[in-house]
Parts: sequence; structure tokens; C-alpha cells
Amino acid sequence: MVYFHNAPASLRLKELAKKPLDLTQEGALTPERIRAMRTDGMGLELLYATERVSHETLEALFSLSLEMGVHDKMVAMQAGEKLNCIHGYPSENRAVLHTAMRDLFEHPQSSPVASQATALARREFEKLKSWIHGVEAAAHFTTMVQVGIGGSDLGPKAIYLALRAFQRPKRHIHFISNVDPDDAAQVVREVDLSKTLFVIVSKSGTTLETNTNEALIRHYLEEEGLDPRKHLIAVTGEGSPMDDPLRYLASFYIWDYVGGRYSVTSMVGGVILAFALGFDLYAQFLKGAHEMDQIALKERGFKNLPLLAALLSIWNRNFLDLPTSAIIPYSQALSRFPAHLQQLEMESNGKRIDQEGNSVSFETGAIIWGEPGTNGQHSFFQLIHQGTTPIPLEIIGFRKSQYGEDLLYQESSSQQKLIANLFAQALALSVGQKSSNPNQLFPGNRPSRILFAEKLDAHTMGAILSFYEHQVAFQGFLWGINSFDQEGVQLGKRLATEFTKQFVHKNKGEPLDIRGFPLGVAFLESI
Amino acid sequence: MVYFHNAPASLRLKELAKKPLDLTQEGALTPERIRAMRTDGMGLELLYATERVSHETLEALFSLSLEMGVHDKMVAMQAGEKLNCIHGYPSENRAVLHTAMRDLFEHPQSSPVASQATALARREFEKLKSWIHGVEAAAHFTTMVQVGIGGSDLGPKAIYLALRAFQRPKRHIHFISNVDPDDAAQVVREVDLSKTLFVIVSKSGTTLETNTNEALIRHYLEEEGLDPRKHLIAVTGEGSPMDDPLRYLASFYIWDYVGGRYSVTSMVGGVILAFALGFDLYAQFLKGAHEMDQIALKERGFKNLPLLAALLSIWNRNFLDLPTSAIIPYSQALSRFPAHLQQLEMESNGKRIDQEGNSVSFETGAIIWGEPGTNGQHSFFQLIHQGTTPIPLEIIGFRKSQYGEDLLYQESSSQQKLIANLFAQALALSVGQKSSNPNQLFPGNRPSRILFAEKLDAHTMGAILSFYEHQVAFQGFLWGINSFDQEGVQLGKRLATEFTKQFVHKNKGEPLDIRGFPLGVAFLESI
Repeated sequence: MVYFHNAPASLRLKELAKKPLDLTQEGALTPERIRAMRTDGMGLELLYATERVSHETLEALFSLSLEMGVHDKMVAMQAGEKLNCIHGYPSENRAVLHTAMRDLFEHPQSSPVASQATALARREFEKLKSWIHGVEAAAHFTTMVQVGIGGSDLGPKAIYLALRAFQRPKRHIHFISNVDPDDAAQVVREVDLSKTLFVIVSKSGTTLETNTNEALIRHYLEEEGLDPRKHLIAVTGEGSPMDDPLRYLASFYIWDYVGGRYSVTSMVGGVILAFALGFDLYAQFLKGAHEMDQIALKERGFKNLPLLAALLSIWNRNFLDLPTSAIIPYSQALSRFPAHLQQLEMESNGKRIDQEGNSVSFETGAIIWGEPGTNGQHSFFQLIHQGTTPIPLEIIGFRKSQYGEDLLYQESSSQQKLIANLFAQALALSVGQKSSNPNQLFPGNRPSRILFAEKLDAHTMGAILSFYEHQVAFQGFLWGINSFDQEGVQLGKRLATEFTKQFVHKNKGEPLDIRGFPLGVAFLESI
Repeated sequence: MVYFHNAPASLRLKELAKKPLDLTQEGALTPERIRAMRTDGMGLELLYATERVSHETLEALFSLSLEMGVHDKMVAMQAGEKLNCIHGYPSENRAVLHTAMRDLFEHPQSSPVASQATALARREFEKLKSWIHGVEAAAHFTTMVQVGIGGSDLGPKAIYLALRAFQRPKRHIHFISNVDPDDAAQVVREVDLSKTLFVIVSKSGTTLETNTNEALIRHYLEEEGLDPRKHLIAVTGEGSPMDDPLRYLASFYIWDYVGGRYSVTSMVGGVILAFALGFDLYAQFLKGAHEMDQIALKERGFKNLPLLAALLSIWNRNFLDLPTSAIIPYSQALSRFPAHLQQLEMESNGKRIDQEGNSVSFETGAIIWGEPGTNGQHSFFQLIHQGTTPIPLEIIGFRKSQYGEDLLYQESSSQQKLIANLFAQALALSVGQKSSNPNQLFPGNRPSRILFAEKLDAHTMGAILSFYEHQVAFQGFLWGINSFDQEGVQLGKRLATEFTKQFVHKNKGEPLDIRGFPLGVAFLESI
């Protein structure tokens, strides 16, 4: 069997990495290279001339994708095969069908499993459509608060902020996620509870933070003399403890084959996005995501944007040994998109075993972080330019602003200055600068790539979201790991229960369990 | 001369790092260790039993601090010696006196330079006090928008959010930072311009993003028939282009010996914090920072909290070879504090030369990132527990919530669950878990430390801020680098100007300068 570490292309890439392209050399980064090293699809351009790859590197990377059979895996995933598993060990053993959530347009999947998932998704989609129209017609509720954590929070929040420029009038949107009681306390102060809908999101219906916040919210509503049942919406699995029409105004369903971090296009993001932006924009967002699903599924070679991006990431991570990757959107609207991608990538690919249960002998998921540019330039870019650990950048930019309100200042507009800064960073990082003053020396050879589009609208946002979902999946396929489970969060959960038990003892006036949990008790004593 | 790389203690630490303490071994992490490995000051506790340090390691780390003379450097810094320099090369050659901004309480510095800086700071402090009282008495303005980028944005925003629970009634606070015109467009939609003060913050008065946003804001105000001069406040250097009473309602001064990322306690943070929280809370915040300055200055050994933290960070970074560090506050109010620390640390210590101008032969500043817990547990913690690159955690927690609104749910409160999760993560990461199912195996030995306090109030926030400022400074002193300049941002700025020129050509209908800037033109063509 071919594994990532012994694939022939991997060995070739290892050789190439001993002397990677030197972008600081005269004649390495040329106008011709910049023009040639770009590819596009759906109006998105991927520019990668400032990555440290030669044509030979790219060829070896695509060979790797063939050797690891990633196209077949993408086909299998979208068709609903049970890719979420570890062979030979108990595991979730599920299909991975977030793509079915938006397979509502042209070229639908034909496999029975995927078709069935799409039929269910369509049912919820239509249910949401009529429910939202009802809410809009009644014109009573002005405010929606999403209550969820992890995938039920980061993705919906990131996309909401990304598209807030197109928000319907008189809509107020908030999020409560943390079990920290100050999170809910802060939000309830900012809303008129009588006009607020709370969307409680938990697939299992048993997420501790979300259940706890729901209890707080019910309490706040009751204190105001309001009936929680008239203000709470459930987004949950059918048959979960939260699937209860006596306790919620409405329920929308999600399924175990849609992982939390891949659930933005499901009802997890759907209810709040449709309320905030209107149902049509939500549908356009899904359509954008679906079209990128098609690119991931059908394109071969450079036209497969997420595959190309995944290969470049693998080159940086495994062959150039760069431990992190920074997402830098030159768009303030994408301020929380890096936090979503941080979850998407790190929870998916932060794994230490392959799908056969073997410990991997290579690095998997990089540490993903980032903030918008130009802000980052006035913050951590010092380290990116002159620090000792190079950081590859995934830059995102747009030709036009969302509001289109701009001004010439010193003969250029703000949007032009924004774009100028974006390209300036990619160029500066790659070519560097020589200087006799050592503090003004820039070593260069710091890789970046740029995803560029016309404007951040709902359709484009869907495409970018899906682009990243598939970049992450392709990386997992290349490494041969399971990008769809999260066993690594279980130990902390179990120990948190043990710590909580000690607080319960304390609340009941009982002694702490020193014998049963000596380490825990020592921590609690010490504070 | 003793350098970091050849200090006797460094060589001893290198030896120790070949076999660092194995926290997964029976008897390594004991209740006794947990109780012993903690230190406190000002009500802040630092728990470090879950770092991979033995007593021998700690001894060697403190020897290193003696060999590198870091105490003398801290004394010199707070006394106003010109530490911001590279010897033998042109450099900023300035004092580093952010501590003077809050040296307004007991035990003031006696050196003439520091006293002079404090006298100026006190002048602005008193000016702000009477100005804020005037604004409050007039009761006209309800809203303040801070317009600044980098240190003029991240720190003030992080601290404002941290203390928002104590906000004065009827105050609305916003921030505009990005040159992206959508940033300003979004904020002006959310405010009543007639009741809004804009604080324009730029030390030089020439920060491109801030000048551009100021122009946009003046335009928005004029469009509403409002006089910008009655709505704009300047925070800038005396004599800068922004120091102009004809164009601003009021001016507050800052000085070149206060770096942007160290400027929260100066008028950069002062105006908006005093408006939002009231002047007294701002003063308490300064007092907390000042008291921690005294600890950094006067304590030797373990009682010097920021020094101990700096040494632990150096151990993780240089001897255990861990490239990043994650800041995980178990407090939603600290949601943007990691972004501030990201700037503080990465801009300060992301350096490739020492203060003599030599290229360093060791790693400097780590990549700093983070999000609040428990949220992170539902996101990137999968990689922290089971990924291939260990990530040290700097956990922050509090015994009490800010609002004190809580509920018993399943017999424990939200705040108790929050604390339970905090300790559970530190414990799980250190001891790990054996399992016959490879997916349920946790390797452990992933270091963390915990900064714990009673409650996140203004005084404590000041102490925590100053704790980190000095942690960063001590790291820089240990490495022998200049933590106070940022030459690494210059190349990108220069190239951005070149790109902007091309847009100016375009705006004037002139051809792009293909001959003068072929690479730039190729980028602009290609999109």
C-alpha cells in the first residue's frame, strides 16, 4: 500500500526540498512567472508565483496526488462513502456529506446515500424558507442570537460578519458560545428580549456549554415574564433530547454525517444567515459553495483550486518544514474567517495516526492563525518579515469593496491602497532586501499565495468557504488521515467532568474527593 | 561578552533539554508538585507544575537570567536609558518609557529622564481627567470611535472589551482600523454621527491607514452637515502634522519613547477607556499596571512573575524547540487579548539580529496566537492534544465572573464549569492517556501554565497587561535583542507605495510603469 511517507513522489519532493527555489535570486521571480503561475475558477484566481515551487516541484506534487488517489477519495466523499473511520478500530464510521447540504442546484449526486442526504437537506431548506417568510411577515422579531460552540459558532459568525454589508434592515445579530456566564450576561444586556429569537444549536442536544447557556437564557426570559417556548429555536439531530416541540418554537435538523466544523451551509448556519441576510442570499451562498464542490470533484490538475492549494500547503508543511500557516484576508469583513479556518483545519488535520491506525512519521495539520491585513502589517508582520521561523501566508483579496463608498486620498482610493499593500507584502516576503545595515536586511524566501476575487458577496463567500473545506479534505487525503473525527477532545471532556464533580461536592458542603482525584483536588486547592 | 547562545546556563539547559521532565511518568506530576510550583503577587497566581521543568531546569533558567543581566536591563529600561538601539548602526536610539505613563502612584522613578517623562504623562492624565468630566457634564456625546491601527487599535480594543462589563451607562464604543473602506462604512452605519466623537490616533500623524480613514470620516461628517472639528480628537506627538487645534476639538500627546504596542496605558488607550469606563476605572487600570512594573523591577527569583514566565517561554521555545505559544483566556471578555499579545510579542521579539547587529544563531520570538476557552476546546484543541507539533499554552483564568449572574445547572454553576475545563485541559495535556485504541492515545507532555486571579477588574487587567509587557521585555533581554523597534515593516511599506503609484497612474489615465516596476505591474495585470 502507498502511504504518504513512502510514495515515490514524496521521495522526489524530499530531494527537491533540499534545494528549493530561491526567490531572492535575480531572475527567479519574473513578470513571466507571475503571469504564468495563476489559475482560476468561478471568478476566483489563485496566484502562487510567490510560493517556493518550481515546475518540477509542482509536477511532483501532482504526482503525489495521483499516487495517493485523492480524486477517488473526493468522489467517494461526495457520493457518501463512509470515509470517517479508522480501519480495524472502533470509530465514528460515518459518511461525510456536508456537500449534500448544498447539492440543491445543477449536477446533483446520483448515489443513493448522497441523494437521500440531499433530499433531507432540501426538506429543511424548504422548511426554513417558509418559516423565515413567516417571521418576516409577522415583523415582530428584530434580533437573533445564535447559541452554540465550535462549529455551531465560528463558521456562522464568520460568514455573518463577512456578509453583514448586505444585511436586511433592522436586524440585530449576536452570538453566545462560551460557558463563561459573562458571555450570555453581556449579550442579554444588548438585546430587547421580547423581540429576540435564540437559535440553540447542538447536533447531539447534549453539548454542555450550549445546554448551560440555554438554561441561563430560559432563566433570563422567564425573569422578564416571557415564555421561552416562544423565543427558542432548536437546530439539532432528529430525536435528540432537544428535538421537542413542547420546548421550542421551531426545530431544524442536522445529521451525523455533517461534522460541526463543516456545518455552516446546513441549518447550523442556515437559520441565522437567512434571518440576517434574507433567504435568497443564503441560497446564493449555498450555490457558490456547491459550484466549488463541483470544481473539487471534477477538475484535474491546476484547475482544481482546492487541490492545488492543498498541495502547496503540503509542500510548505512537510517538505519546507514550516509549522504554521497564516490566513491574511485583506478585507475587514473577513475578520473572523481565520478563526473559522483555524477550527476547520486544526480539528480536521491535527491528527497523529493514519486511517489504518498507524502513528504517522511525518507532520500533519499545521497551526493555522491570522488576522486581516492591513492590520496585521502593523502587528505581527515584523516577525513574518524578520523572525526566525518563516510563516507561509494564505492571502485573500478583492478588487472591489462591499459598500463601494470610497474616496481619493493622495490620488488613490482606500481600496486601491488595500490592494497595493496586499501585493507589496507578497513581493517583499519573497524577494527580501539586501542591506549593509543588518537590521534592514530581509532574508526573503518567505512563501505566500493569493486568492483573489471581484467582490465579497454571498456567492463568492460560498465558493471561498467550500474552497477551504476541500483544501482541508485534500490535505487529509494526501496524508491518509481521517479529517472528520475529533477523538482528541475526549480526554479533556472526561477530566472536566471529574473537576466539575468536585465543585458539586463543594456546593453540597461535602469534602472533595482527595483519594479518588488527588491531582484535581491539588489544583483546586492551589487557587 | 556573554551572549544567549554561549552563556554557561544555556549550555546546561541544552543538556537538560535532551531529557526533559516526562510528565506522563507515574510520580512526575504529583499533588505536592502542583502545590509547590506556584507563585503569586498582587493576587495573581502563576501555576507552572504542568510545564516540563525540573528544579534543576528552573535553577539553570534563573542562572541564565543572571548571566544575561536582565534585572539591570529592567532597571535601566524603567529609568529611561536608551535601550531601543542597535549598537554600531543607525537605529531609533530611544528610551523605552511606557512604564512612565503609569508611574503616577507610589515609589516613582527618580532618574531625571523617567521623572521628566512621568511629569509629561501626568500633565496629559490631568488634562484627560478634566476633559472627560467636561464631556460627561455636557452629556451630549454618547459614542466614541477609536481610529488607529496596530498598537493604536489592538490594545485599546482588547482592554475595552475586557472591562466592558463595567462600562458607564449609555456609552457606545467602536473601532476603525483597516484601510479597507468597508471598515469605516460599517461603523458609520452603526452610530449617530451627531453624538459621536472620533479619536484619531497616530504618534507620527502620518500613518497612512489612519490618515485615510480620517479623511473618510471627515467626509461622512460633512455629508451630514456636521463640523468635523467638533467631533475629532487627536492623540499624537507634539508638533506632528495632526497637532493642530484648528482641526481637532482636543489633542492629547504621546511620545517617541512609548512604542505603539506598549502604548495602551498612555493617551492612546486613555481617552477611549476613560470615556467608556469613567476616569476612575482608567486610573485603577494604570495603578494595576504600575504595581506589576514594581514587581518586574524589584523582585528577584520566583516572585518576579513576568521574569519567571519569560524563562518558561524561553525553555519551551529555545530548548524544547516549540515554535508557537497559545494564549487561552478562560474569559470571554478577554476575546481580543490574544490579538493584542500577538502584536506585543511578535512585533517586539520577531527579530533576526541581536543588539550588536549579529545574526542570531537561535530562535527568537515565538508565533503567538489564541482564542478563549472553553471555545478553543471545541475548535483547535484537537491538534493541541493529538497533533504532531506540541503547543505550549498560556492559560488565564479567574475565580469569579464579572457580572456575577450565574445558575446552578446539573448542580454546578457556569463559572465552576469554566474553571473545571481550564484545569482539565492543563491536566490532560500534561499526563496524556494510554490506550489500545491508537485514536484514543494522548501522548501528553504538552506544557502549559496558568495565570489565575480573583476577578477580571480594572486593577487586575492593568496587572495582567503589564505582566505580559514585561514578560516580552525579559525575553528580549535574555536573547540580547532589541524588543522595541520594528524595522521589519519598512520594506512592505516602501513597496506598497510603489504599488499605489501604479494606481495613481491608472487614476490619471497614464500607462503603468512597466520598466520601473515590472514585477508590480505583472501582479496588477494578473488580477
